Amino acid sequence: MNPNKMKAVHYEGPFKVSVKEIETPTIQHPDDAIIKVTTAAICGSDLHMYQGRTAAEAGLVFGHENMGIVVETGPGVTLLKEGDRIVLPFNVADGRCRNCEEGRTAFCTGVNPGFAGGAYGYVSMGPYQGGQAQYLRVPYADFNALKLPEGKEHEADFALLADIFPTGWHGLVLAGFKPGESVAVFGAGPVGLMAAYSAVIRGASRIFVVDKVPERLEAAKKIGCTPVDFTESDPVEQIIKMNDGMVDRAVDAVGYQAVDSSGSKEKPNVVLDQLIRVTRPTGGLGIPGLYVPADPGAPDAQSKEGQILISFGKLFEKGLSLGTGQCNVKSYNRYLRDLIIAGRAKPSFVVSHEINIDDVPGAYEKFDKRIDGYTKVLIHPNGPL
Amino acid sequence: MNPNKMKAVHYEGPFKVSVKEIETPTIQHPDDAIIKVTTAAICGSDLHMYQGRTAAEAGLVFGHENMGIVVETGPGVTLLKEGDRIVLPFNVADGRCRNCEEGRTAFCTGVNPGFAGGAYGYVSMGPYQGGQAQYLRVPYADFNALKLPEGKEHEADFALLADIFPTGWHGLVLAGFKPGESVAVFGAGPVGLMAAYSAVIRGASRIFVVDKVPERLEAAKKIGCTPVDFTESDPVEQIIKMNDGMVDRAVDAVGYQAVDSSGSKEKPNVVLDQLIRVTRPTGGLGIPGLYVPADPGAPDAQSKEGQILISFGKLFEKGLSLGTGQCNVKSYNRYLRDLIIAGRAKPSFVVSHEINIDDVPGAYEKFDKRIDGYTKVLIHPNGPL
Amino acid sequence: MNPNKMKAVHYEGPFKVSVKEIETPTIQHPDDAIIKVTTAAICGSDLHMYQGRTAAEAGLVFGHENMGIVVETGPGVTLLKEGDRIVLPFNVADGRCRNCEEGRTAFCTGVNPGFAGGAYGYVSMGPYQGGQAQYLRVPYADFNALKLPEGKEHEADFALLADIFPTGWHGLVLAGFKPGESVAVFGAGPVGLMAAYSAVIRGASRIFVVDKVPERLEAAKKIGCTPVDFTESDPVEQIIKMNDGMVDRAVDAVGYQAVDSSGSKEKPNVVLDQLIRVTRPTGGLGIPGLYVPADPGAPDAQSKEGQILISFGKLFEKGLSLGTGQCNVKSYNRYLRDLIIAGRAKPSFVVSHEINIDDVPGAYEKFDKRIDGYTKVLIHPNGPL
Amino acid sequence: MNPNKMKAVHYEGPFKVSVKEIETPTIQHPDDAIIKVTTAAICGSDLHMYQGRTAAEAGLVFGHENMGIVVETGPGVTLLKEGDRIVLPFNVADGRCRNCEEGRTAFCTGVNPGFAGGAYGYVSMGPYQGGQAQYLRVPYADFNALKLPEGKEHEADFALLADIFPTGWHGLVLAGFKPGESVAVFGAGPVGLMAAYSAVIRGASRIFVVDKVPERLEAAKKIGCTPVDFTESDPVEQIIKMNDGMVDRAVDAVGYQAVDSSGSKEKPNVVLDQLIRVTRPTGGLGIPGLYVPADPGAPDAQSKEGQILISFGKLFEKGLSLGTGQCNVKSYNRYLRDLIIAGRAKPSFVVSHEINIDDVPGAYEKFDKRIDGYTKVLIHPNGPL
Repeated sequence: MNPNKMKAVHYEGPFKVSVKEIETPTIQHPDDAIIKVTTAAICGSDLHMYQGRTAAEAGLVFGHENMGIVVETGPGVTLLKEGDRIVLPFNVADGRCRNCEEGRTAFCTGVNPGFAGGAYGYVSMGPYQGGQAQYLRVPYADFNALKLPEGKEHEADFALLADIFPTGWHGLVLAGFKPGESVAVFGAGPVGLMAAYSAVIRGASRIFVVDKVPERLEAAKKIGCTPVDFTESDPVEQIIKMNDGMVDRAVDAVGYQAVDSSGSKEKPNVVLDQLIRVTRPTGGLGIPGLYVPADPGAPDAQSKEGQILISFGKLFEKGLSLGTGQCNVKSYNRYLRDLIIAGRAKPSFVVSHEINIDDVPGAYEKFDKRIDGYTKVLIHPNGPL
Repeated sequence: MNPNKMKAVHYEGPFKVSVKEIETPTIQHPDDAIIKVTTAAICGSDLHMYQGRTAAEAGLVFGHENMGIVVETGPGVTLLKEGDRIVLPFNVADGRCRNCEEGRTAFCTGVNPGFAGGAYGYVSMGPYQGGQAQYLRVPYADFNALKLPEGKEHEADFALLADIFPTGWHGLVLAGFKPGESVAVFGAGPVGLMAAYSAVIRGASRIFVVDKVPERLEAAKKIGCTPVDFTESDPVEQIIKMNDGMVDRAVDAVGYQAVDSSGSKEKPNVVLDQLIRVTRPTGGLGIPGLYVPADPGAPDAQSKEGQILISFGKLFEKGLSLGTGQCNVKSYNRYLRDLIIAGRAKPSFVVSHEINIDDVPGAYEKFDKRIDGYTKVLIHPNGPL
Repeated sequence: MNPNKMKAVHYEGPFKVSVKEIETPTIQHPDDAIIKVTTAAICGSDLHMYQGRTAAEAGLVFGHENMGIVVETGPGVTLLKEGDRIVLPFNVADGRCRNCEEGRTAFCTGVNPGFAGGAYGYVSMGPYQGGQAQYLRVPYADFNALKLPEGKEHEADFALLADIFPTGWHGLVLAGFKPGESVAVFGAGPVGLMAAYSAVIRGASRIFVVDKVPERLEAAKKIGCTPVDFTESDPVEQIIKMNDGMVDRAVDAVGYQAVDSSGSKEKPNVVLDQLIRVTRPTGGLGIPGLYVPADPGAPDAQSKEGQILISFGKLFEKGLSLGTGQCNVKSYNRYLRDLIIAGRAKPSFVVSHEINIDDVPGAYEKFDKRIDGYTKVLIHPNGPL
Repeated sequence: MNPNKMKAVHYEGPFKVSVKEIETPTIQHPDDAIIKVTTAAICGSDLHMYQGRTAAEAGLVFGHENMGIVVETGPGVTLLKEGDRIVLPFNVADGRCRNCEEGRTAFCTGVNPGFAGGAYGYVSMGPYQGGQAQYLRVPYADFNALKLPEGKEHEADFALLADIFPTGWHGLVLAGFKPGESVAVFGAGPVGLMAAYSAVIRGASRIFVVDKVPERLEAAKKIGCTPVDFTESDPVEQIIKMNDGMVDRAVDAVGYQAVDSSGSKEKPNVVLDQLIRVTRPTGGLGIPGLYVPADPGAPDAQSKEGQILISFGKLFEKGLSLGTGQCNVKSYNRYLRDLIIAGRAKPSFVVSHEINIDDVPGAYEKFDKRIDGYTKVLIHPNGPL
């Protein structure tokens, strides 16, 4: 029997989250399940809300990277049972609309009326409470859950199957990557590192990773990639020189908050243009990094409306292709899970902290300020495993 | 024995071409062949040079859509022989570089030093004379030639295999088209009509064609497509209403000289933005329409440098993909030839005029002014067949 | 309110079916729906059971090609509502197992314990009653149903979306077909004709259809294909001569009951070997025609165990690829529906009879004997539309 | 200036090769080049000829796995120059026929009249002398050559780009492999080990390798695969047990000389049937292992004609796909070269011996008898590097 009350991370307003007790979620649809959350991660995109740059309202429970143990199932659930250990894609998807049928679960049309795509604990992504809480309701649970081996092994690795490992992998897919090719990844945050790591796993020949933060560049180097510091000189020229030519594929793991060579001034088109310049004719660009249709905090009027100035003539002349959009986590998470189980992938090298739920407010603050090495934080809302 | 001299269409300067006698081309490399040109088409892109908006210099012989009869072969030629009737892709390709090997013949690195891609009779596309002449030298002839059935049948249809039929087809491929899907084609010039016609042949369900010229819209209707006049009202809204939703795929067959709803004022990003708006989440955009890295005649400073303002936030939110670039004609021309032979394709419905070489100067003038119905002109440089 | 009793077609034993009253089906799982059947087709594979060549037991209600109107929905159903007109894939699929997720709905592992794949009204394909009845229970209804426009239009065309139109289309997909290629289809029964018709719609250049029945060959000719009578002479030689070479793709729409050139003696490997011979090196073979792991009625000991002697050395030397298996109807039915609505496909030309449920026993008898032109029969269990 | 005479390995008759002096090859076509061979490997398929089981005639110079330094180029050669270090695909291809254009270089129709495919030094594969000699003529040299970095580094790794590394890689491609999937490779000879190694590089989760030879199984284990000894018990059951289910993909790297569980009696269909049994429904089979249309030494009448008894009913029921045929080396060798240069692939672990040309006769004898550990032999015909 679940308790009536549980702890959950609440958004209170700009730069303020708190842990409060609320009602434990209950089954609302026959295909729902309830899980006891063992791990929920904090994502860089949670910071967008935390910083007050979105329309998120006070009271929202954060958390779209969730895993746990099934404690209750609705009468329509056929594949899951109590006690199953599962990890959930950040996307909430119904498994029965056209997009879900075709594997485009990030664009489900059945879970967020009027929009293609839903998620847990995220502004505008539907009425789904987040998992930075002790319990979580999982809609369409059979479809959304990925089963994991019993026990506690690989907990941190599996937690990353909810979002960043598949999202990095997706970047390569969007770019049309094939094994043996060379790749440039822009951005060495958690998603960029996962994209680079995916390239390692999938047999890229050369992998360049562009960032400015020494620790991130060091992490890229440790997994066998070539770090490129864009504050030193033009990263495109650096890569072309080291690669003896342009690369086959490039991935934008930065998104709309890109900064220029000063390392601090926002310039939304800088990374996209570097991708166009660094990729050889007939190559491909993968854009998993977030671009938004409206950004009130943008540095100029056009960017506020999500409009970006692109070197489209050069893009065309080179015959480049370009893929965008949020990750259809279900397309990959099963395979990445199996790589983890087989010992061939260990993405948890990006995890910097594992904390209890009561420590979450402080963690948001430090993560936002990028201090004390906060890069990827895992919360164990029901205590250490 | 070929004659020493031949007639050829020369560029003289802005808005002036003439027919002059020059040396008949000769074998320069063992893999060359010489053809007697039976048909050479005038392409809309020839007008860019004709109008003086490029760096084309006086003396250039125009013509990149060529077919004819082999009259001489170099000692390295193994597949062609005298008398063979062939059509040539507008791309000149060496068949031995990486891009050619991988089917990207529009991006050959072996025929135009320092650039990926070559063509006959076109500024910046290598040292290859055009085919609006009585004879033409064909480099790497075995690789570049597509053999045709003997005789004179289907001449006009086959001539369109050099460029516009494959280029229209390529638009669908770039968009990721699959049979049964709905398609919107922007632009009903020859390439746009060929894209729409390709969609008919390949089993699209609904096909919308956007233009402002009544004759072009009528032509689209005749092949079973739904015409959309963008000067009447927002074409995106028209399509969404008629299609009961957004389309699966959209093709830009307009390019950088797009005009706004007035039908006359250039606005380079208008069609791209319409593509983004009209395509459903997870859909694809195909951009065979030309965008250039530098356009001195552009309406604003950014466009002059080939930079276009794109609703990238919306593109990302919808998870759209996008393919660009000139057509790898060899990827398709064999199959389109076979459809013509089998009677399943008859693209020559777009041909408006067939003329002798001496009439070419007048034809350029009328084509440029869009008078007397000049839309697609075939030249028979050695007289009527 | 549904009536308590309804008429349904029962299997009684070899060569005997009858129409009996039974309980009207009811909701058994929250995601179920009940439909009032407007049309159910008789399939050639129903005859396998009818003839007593399977393990089907008396009492089985036949019918896996079903469409109708939703009359009741379970509490888990979110996309369907009463009054919706829908057509159902012959496959029953849960939409939540790995194979369903990946679009392989013919191999669902959640609906037929211990086996990959389920169907309505078919021996060994799970506990699902068939639709040759007035009402039908539809499991996982949101996932399995394809919505149709309201009304009665295109009823016969839409009915074929349950099986044979997608199955024919699947044959081309299995063969790796690309537009412009040449195709040979072996067998001009309903599935073979649908494969040939799919090739027409999708832009094949030449399409050869092999059979022995004049009416079938005539039907192939009417849709623009070249008929080939295999009782006249070796069909492979006929095709190679007419095509001036081997074809690019070949489809086996015959299956394990293939007969030799006499037209009557079973020889299970004859069609497969013809496919291998008629297809050019690097081409592809699509095998939608049924082969079974056990066939007690087979002409020899090996075939009884589903073992077929293949010219594998020749297959390898030619570098052929080969795809097999039942059709994942959901992969195609939406697109084929849209082609029907748009007027670009009208597959009902294969329908020979439309009957009431009381006439079903006689129809089975005539269909089995191939008399009175019985080729594809549609039943309207609730009377004419 | 090349010498007039050179040493070359000659086939003399069953179980006899010798090293003789013959004329050094010369340019015969403008696109030819001549290389001084630095390394030529002996292939298992050379043994088929050596054993007298083919129609090979005395005088044939063996050797289809060749690399060396360009010493002369014909006047049509544009990309190569004297001194270039290159490796050659075992396939001879013209780069200008339809199959070459489409990347199917193993099925070139221009180099071996009446047949699709040519090779150096191999019976029935065209008039091309082998490279187990001091010099070699390379037809269509620009197309066939893959350039390597100057110097002597990675010589043994690069030599394997001529055949076995790409051929193993091809096995995965034929099987439809995707990263994260599980794979079973049957046969741990050089090609099987390369297939398994390719699976490692490309991100397979679990990789099972089936053989009977302890050293081979040990080699598989060393690269991170799970060895399976088929003489111990049914390898399919072993794999299913260890993998907790069937695998996603299976590769046949054995071919027509497969042996039964005794480890010595030929049974041509045993491996194919194991592939069918071990692969999960909807999975794929890759068959790079050689099957031949005629094998006079086969154990039964059907196999003599290349006919193999297949569990086709089971194959169909599982909906398996299957790809076959010789490797199009050019599709992969560039990428595999870059993996070698980047230090991410080091396939030379399979090389057992490096010898001078005068030692070749003894090496054939030992290799044929599988004594002294002869598994993969590299010849340096012009002496050690």
